[in-house]
Amino acid sequence: MSNELDELRADIRSLTEDLVRLLSKRLEVAKRIGMVKMRHGLGIVDEKAEDELRSHILSMCDALSLDRIFVNRMLNLLFAESTRVQEAMYEEMGRVEEKEERSKSGGGGDESSVGRARMRPVDIFSKARVLERMGREIIHMEIGEPRLTIPSKVRQSLIDALDKGRYHYTESKGLEELRSAIADILNVRYSASLSKDDVIITPGGRFAVYLAMLASLKPGDEVLVVEPAWPAYIDIAEFIGVKVRRLSTRLEDGWSIDIGKLKSIMNQNTRMLILNYPNNPTGKIIEKDTLDAIVDVARSKGMMILSDEVYADLAFKDFNSILQYNYDKSIMVSSFSKGPSMTGFRIGYAATTSKQIIDGMSRLQSMMLTCVAEPIQYSALAALSSMDHVRSNATIIKSRLDLICRRLMDMQLSFYRPDGAMYVFAKVDINSDMKRFVDALLEKGVAVAPGSGFGSCYDRFIRISAGVDERVLSKGLDIIGDVLNMMGRDRENE
Amino acid sequence: MSNELDELRADIRSLTEDLVRLLSKRLEVAKRIGMVKMRHGLGIVDEKAEDELRSHILSMCDALSLDRIFVNRMLNLLFAESTRVQEAMYEEMGRVEEKEERSKSGGGGDESSVGRARMRPVDIFSKARVLERMGREIIHMEIGEPRLTIPSKVRQSLIDALDKGRYHYTESKGLEELRSAIADILNVRYSASLSKDDVIITPGGRFAVYLAMLASLKPGDEVLVVEPAWPAYIDIAEFIGVKVRRLSTRLEDGWSIDIGKLKSIMNQNTRMLILNYPNNPTGKIIEKDTLDAIVDVARSKGMMILSDEVYADLAFKDFNSILQYNYDKSIMVSSFSKGPSMTGFRIGYAATTSKQIIDGMSRLQSMMLTCVAEPIQYSALAALSSMDHVRSNATIIKSRLDLICRRLMDMQLSFYRPDGAMYVFAKVDINSDMKRFVDALLEKGVAVAPGSGFGSCYDRFIRISAGVDERVLSKGLDIIGDVLNMMGRDRENE
Repeated sequence: MSNELDELRADIRSLTEDLVRLLSKRLEVAKRIGMVKMRHGLGIVDEKAEDELRSHILSMCDALSLDRIFVNRMLNLLFAESTRVQEAMYEEMGRVEEKEERSKSGGGGDESSVGRARMRPVDIFSKARVLERMGREIIHMEIGEPRLTIPSKVRQSLIDALDKGRYHYTESKGLEELRSAIADILNVRYSASLSKDDVIITPGGRFAVYLAMLASLKPGDEVLVVEPAWPAYIDIAEFIGVKVRRLSTRLEDGWSIDIGKLKSIMNQNTRMLILNYPNNPTGKIIEKDTLDAIVDVARSKGMMILSDEVYADLAFKDFNSILQYNYDKSIMVSSFSKGPSMTGFRIGYAATTSKQIIDGMSRLQSMMLTCVAEPIQYSALAALSSMDHVRSNATIIKSRLDLICRRLMDMQLSFYRPDGAMYVFAKVDINSDMKRFVDALLEKGVAVAPGSGFGSCYDRFIRISAGVDERVLSKGLDIIGDVLNMMGRDRENE
Repeated sequence: MSNELDELRADIRSLTEDLVRLLSKRLEVAKRIGMVKMRHGLGIVDEKAEDELRSHILSMCDALSLDRIFVNRMLNLLFAESTRVQEAMYEEMGRVEEKEERSKSGGGGDESSVGRARMRPVDIFSKARVLERMGREIIHMEIGEPRLTIPSKVRQSLIDALDKGRYHYTESKGLEELRSAIADILNVRYSASLSKDDVIITPGGRFAVYLAMLASLKPGDEVLVVEPAWPAYIDIAEFIGVKVRRLSTRLEDGWSIDIGKLKSIMNQNTRMLILNYPNNPTGKIIEKDTLDAIVDVARSKGMMILSDEVYADLAFKDFNSILQYNYDKSIMVSSFSKGPSMTGFRIGYAATTSKQIIDGMSRLQSMMLTCVAEPIQYSALAALSSMDHVRSNATIIKSRLDLICRRLMDMQLSFYRPDGAMYVFAKVDINSDMKRFVDALLEKGVAVAPGSGFGSCYDRFIRISAGVDERVLSKGLDIIGDVLNMMGRDRENE
């Protein structure tokens, strides 16, 4: 036995040696490709070439009795390492800045280009905080916090929870009472048929997105993100090792999704589509027939849909939830941050009838943080029975958005009048660099979120949040108008 | 240019084809090895063989201009796939149960054997909950919740936070005020020199462990866990793709760590050692000279130390924190769950002077869940100024532990008298199967945590938690005594 095993192990050893020698050779060729690209000013990543090679190699798997998931992972590692050595080369030659300039000017309609210089709303928030610590007053129009009052029942529920000794571990999925109440409300609202077991309570909608993607995607899978998009989807996907395909939408098309384009971007690895309506940053609510068509495509391809409906309480026209479709490969995510204005309570949830996904999310949450704080779960339960308060919050947000729209129209900026959510995503037609514009605004005391944070084709946009009251908002909009005039508008667009 | 690039791409293509063909060959040999192992009743994973091959292949990297991290990851993938195909073979042949039996009877002193049949405290908790829903009364001696009162200031601080509108996003690392207060207390207690920037507030100590490992380890790295151990360390490590080496300690040695053994288990991939004193489940506090020696070893090897000090408030003899050593590669984790009894508030923290690690943790937390709920952060701040309450909680726990020890001595069970924490880890010498024993206890209304959850060598142990008051505890201990007598003690041990 020992001899037989030793011989086989010697085989394994020499095959593994051959393998790393091949890896070394392959990277040498990758470096030479990098040299050619560099000489001709091309970007490092060529997705088309990668995709073709991946398809070709995967097509060999069956004949070689190889598992496609395994080979896919191996290819991810290989491609990533090739990119790394090429980038290291570029860096060594001090060409990095030059390259960034090139990729910026070359950007535009390409869905797959990677937005390297993305600036997230949180980056501006940090800059603003530095100025505030220096004693400056900043109007925060960059952050997605409604900054309204919480329902009074929420306060009382927290006190009651403490007085009743409700500050212990709960089930990882969350309190049954809360999950039941959420399922009931969603069933009524969307004619869904959820049970309490289809719901998981998470510390915020962001964590629900993280868990949902982690529980249902593997490295090597691809997700499709509709841009402009909240940066978290791409950050999380990239962190998990999932590849992102971007489907850009355009202001000129009313931010609508072109189904033909959607189909053409999908491939066999596209495992999930992420939707977010009412949309951050555009305020768009997707048309019913478009959503119908998307669900049809997803069904026919077995593609999951992650629908982030965190702004559903702030919908100012008919809104259709993914839950209306009874699609078992869909995951709906929401939270208590926007309608009830409970951002700082950090509580959200996900709902899906896929037992595999919800069980996976629950196991992951149990491993990472046990459960959401019990008193906070009771406060969410109280918020569910405070729908009048939520509606009144929505009215306030709507009124703020109307004010922003009126004032931006006066400034002759282009934007889509929001159907929902709490932002206006406006195109700024000035001659100067947008970074300079955003910095100049901050200098004058207004923080806005630059469009580059929401996708690679939105450098000319800013996102204005309705998270401050109308008086302050009005002051902020005055300043935006002033800075626009100061920096010189691009008159040819008028 | 186009020609040159096309030629190089053709090279890449054929090299990648060669690569997958080699992968296929290698897996064929792996399958044959699996057959031999199966015929001779051997386990699938042979760590020694893997380690040797890994060292050998890594030693080739420099000559081949290959990055060791990349090759390490590639080897992880290869080894995992070999294991997978071998396991699939075993399963196909219906040999799985037979194999498990064999690995159980063969278990014992081997640090690297994988505890497949681990039963976590939470599994028993779930079983107990099912019985409770059927109307049965269960004494919960399995869960690590003190179930004592929270300081009165904590209640008031929550109400104040809401009334002052403090329910918004905070910095991802947490409120400055809270981080400063924690740094100040730790500096006084352990003569450390932490600033507020060295502290991050997390939703529980468990999440701090998760972030710390995620921020500082890569797949292919190894961590060293001292067993018996809280199951979370290994669960998290395995989830991240980090390999676990186990250093068993023994009741007969007073759960002390043998430094020689520690050194012999470490290798070049061992990037982190996880310590947890006062220990869950044993109640041990590590000896000062042993900790000195461990830190010396870590310093000389550049190995990180993750020290989970969540039970530091429940230390009944001198306790030394890792913070006393000013070791820049150490991370201390703690929480508000045990001393102030705030389990259900889900708030903890980590402290490290490694800027790289704390920045990494902060970035990850920002991506995953933004921050801990703001009102909860204020409640933690209030708990920090309630040390009298914490001390009185510790006295209650000590008294409960004394009761448990007295009663277990009457039952003539062997155990280490706890130096701290809130458990007694007792060896049960009965003739019957331990699973039957734990199930029989549950049947009689007592839930305890089976030792198998804490490591592969602790099947004969149970962990009894001091998380219920003395009256109930006493009732539970009566039942344990009854069941022991009923199931027949192993008299030869007396």
